Amino acid sequence: MPDHTASADLQATLDHLESHADENLARFDALLRIPSVAAEPAHDADTRRASEWIVALMEEIGIEHATATPTVTGHPVVTGDWLHAGADAPTVLVYAHYDVQPPDPLDEWIRPPFEPRYEDGKVFARGASDDKNQLVQHLNAADAWLRAAGRLPLNLRFVFEGDEESSAVPVEEFIAAHPELLAADLCLVSDGAMYDDEGTPEITYGLRGISYFEITVSGPRQDLHSGSYGGAVRNPANVLVKLLAALTDEHGRCTVPSFYDQVRSLTDAERDAYSALPYDVEAQRDLIGVPQMWAGDPDYTFMERLSGRPTFDINGLWGGYSGDGSKTIIPARASAKFSTRLVPDQDHAEIAELMVTHLARLAPPEVTVAVKVIQGGYPYMTPIDSPATQRAAAALERAYGRAPLFARSGGSVPFVSALQLATNLPVLLVGFATPNGNYHAPNEWLPLDYWRGGMEAIVHLWDEFSRATPEELRVR
Amino acid sequence: MPDHTASADLQATLDHLESHADENLARFDALLRIPSVAAEPAHDADTRRASEWIVALMEEIGIEHATATPTVTGHPVVTGDWLHAGADAPTVLVYAHYDVQPPDPLDEWIRPPFEPRYEDGKVFARGASDDKNQLVQHLNAADAWLRAAGRLPLNLRFVFEGDEESSAVPVEEFIAAHPELLAADLCLVSDGAMYDDEGTPEITYGLRGISYFEITVSGPRQDLHSGSYGGAVRNPANVLVKLLAALTDEHGRCTVPSFYDQVRSLTDAERDAYSALPYDVEAQRDLIGVPQMWAGDPDYTFMERLSGRPTFDINGLWGGYSGDGSKTIIPARASAKFSTRLVPDQDHAEIAELMVTHLARLAPPEVTVAVKVIQGGYPYMTPIDSPATQRAAAALERAYGRAPLFARSGGSVPFVSALQLATNLPVLLVGFATPNGNYHAPNEWLPLDYWRGGMEAIVHLWDEFSRATPEELRVR
Repeated sequence: MPDHTASADLQATLDHLESHADENLARFDALLRIPSVAAEPAHDADTRRASEWIVALMEEIGIEHATATPTVTGHPVVTGDWLHAGADAPTVLVYAHYDVQPPDPLDEWIRPPFEPRYEDGKVFARGASDDKNQLVQHLNAADAWLRAAGRLPLNLRFVFEGDEESSAVPVEEFIAAHPELLAADLCLVSDGAMYDDEGTPEITYGLRGISYFEITVSGPRQDLHSGSYGGAVRNPANVLVKLLAALTDEHGRCTVPSFYDQVRSLTDAERDAYSALPYDVEAQRDLIGVPQMWAGDPDYTFMERLSGRPTFDINGLWGGYSGDGSKTIIPARASAKFSTRLVPDQDHAEIAELMVTHLARLAPPEVTVAVKVIQGGYPYMTPIDSPATQRAAAALERAYGRAPLFARSGGSVPFVSALQLATNLPVLLVGFATPNGNYHAPNEWLPLDYWRGGMEAIVHLWDEFSRATPEELRVR
Repeated sequence: MPDHTASADLQATLDHLESHADENLARFDALLRIPSVAAEPAHDADTRRASEWIVALMEEIGIEHATATPTVTGHPVVTGDWLHAGADAPTVLVYAHYDVQPPDPLDEWIRPPFEPRYEDGKVFARGASDDKNQLVQHLNAADAWLRAAGRLPLNLRFVFEGDEESSAVPVEEFIAAHPELLAADLCLVSDGAMYDDEGTPEITYGLRGISYFEITVSGPRQDLHSGSYGGAVRNPANVLVKLLAALTDEHGRCTVPSFYDQVRSLTDAERDAYSALPYDVEAQRDLIGVPQMWAGDPDYTFMERLSGRPTFDINGLWGGYSGDGSKTIIPARASAKFSTRLVPDQDHAEIAELMVTHLARLAPPEVTVAVKVIQGGYPYMTPIDSPATQRAAAALERAYGRAPLFARSGGSVPFVSALQLATNLPVLLVGFATPNGNYHAPNEWLPLDYWRGGMEAIVHLWDEFSRATPEELRVR
């Protein structure tokens, strides 16, 4: 398809969005009024109703195979597709979620959370930013393109989750059971925010993985009197802190042999992208309430350490006596939960094995050391210089009149981890919320500018992706 | 007083004990029948009755100033004296306690715990070994000596505690309030056991002290998401384990500068005494249930480490998440309780200051580290070669026909710590129970041989101590 045709369709689509603004907003409003609180069984019927409402909207628009598939442990996953752009056109899988956070505490809402309030160019409602806006933005964009051009410039699949705020299990089950519904060349996840309050667009091109462990050091059958046995019996809590302390060096780097072997070095482009990210360290310090942010590994900047490097964190410690005053015991056992956030191309299964082996080697013979692997997730990255990322950047620049920032997230997204495992698709995370939209707090809100801007950006993203071959989008 | 006179009195006293064996045992039996369970308010009247019974017995025997002095938070402390041996004769303070452990679980007793049963040369009852036997043994010995010789060979004071099994506070209050009732040249504590089942006598000539701490490392105001902040915020639990791990070396030795400066070296005599102590390490290992006993500091033997060297033990750890599964947080804070057992001449106040200063020096600037001193107790020793210890050894050898073993205890005795603080008296601990007498378990028992042997040993101890000057007994 030559570029000038695409451009004509693009303009017609943007015009359609503008001329149908009220109708589009009415759809958003209607979904916001359905209290799809996945975590609350009292709202199970509402959550199901939301999935049915989405299926109906998809059918109205012309999305085919629109279906709400029940899950064993959660709410339905809604899918649908439009696959008539031809075999040469790429296929993009769009992800969003239709469930919302519980609205409590209710008395802090100025208006009830499921009665949208429009004020000062903003909409206030539970789900306004996380994530009903983005779900409806995608469907409205598809609608506009189909109405204005009679067809889409590329093949699209949609997957809308109903348990994102409560459990990863249902979507993981769904992905494992229905990989055919997710077949595509690229996945676009829309469940995030612009980079800052000024509406700077952001492409999140990587996520960290995780290896999560529980360790228990056991010594005597029961707590011993520290006077009678101190000095002659290895104290399991003493051993635990020695083991955990030995897992990092003075800069917090993990000391497990081969731990960093598979870490992909940051490219110059990535380091440039990191240094371009504005971040007010002092404001963060103040918000978190620490004396100062961490100096950490001197070979990496603060921002690089925040998402581009592995971590080691103890998540919990317990054992022995924690009541008032003193109890003079050698505790029978002591435990900890700890985890490492992983970066490409670390393999959580390999890291788990390295960790378990290393701890077994360090364990002294006077105690028993048991290490359980509690959780594992793959890190993920679609490189900045990949065609998909570059196409997305060009689209966002056209939509917003400014180049996007490239960032990696320090956390994990269960949908992305599970999708990776099942399909190995490249994934880009592009969000259209405001970064301080009270997502998990009372009075969640979204600027109406962001509502309109997001739909336009989606139209530009599809236009740009449609100019690539399927193979190009698959490059990682 | 020339030795031959003493010897004549001694023999008459021993004869009197033998000829009045039934009467002496009847006293023990009567006290065993009073359920003086200090920890149980339902037995408060019984515990008071026990103190009154003892006062009456002391008066019957001829002990003067017999008094049960109430305490603010506990049961009465019983005191009395016989101070007519003359100013040149030494004064010995005798300690025992009249309260007992709760008898639960009651259904595991073959006969009710407060109805003594005599069988196979043993007496079974709560308090038979801990510690009513030793209290009555001392009073019977005084009675026999006063009856047989018309006088005691030395000045005696008695102090009988009523809260030993439940709280150290009442006796500490009493000591602070009434040091004049405890004025002596030597204190003999009778609340322990022979060294082994074969009735080998033991002199416990030293106790460890203690410094007990609580540390809290605080970071962010609340728990943080480890994906969003991992690598950029110091994890308080990571810091805690590093700090605690840094307090000992690979052999468990404390690394706090100057920690060992005041430690008195083990003398050759002590090391000989340690090596003479039979100890079945393998049986202990089996009892405790550890894979092996601790190798520890290679410069000291197992037995030396068990009581003659300082320790470092973490007594409790807590912070962050300890529930099922995983929670990916950087905990806001993490805490531990830890303690060091101290040996002569370490000063717990000085050790506490060294510890707090050292931790402040190690604390990284990104967190707040708070260290509280929870408890402090002085270590204690009356050297093996001191006249008091040598006199006691000679007496026990005469009584039992075999030399006693010299041991130090790894724990502390609150009465001794408090007495040290108030009077700085030398203390020897000589016990007459059997080491496996079910003291804190059902079916507590004592061999009747040990009952008779203990009274004879006490008579010999007084005879030997009477041959020393007050100044000699005070040497430490």
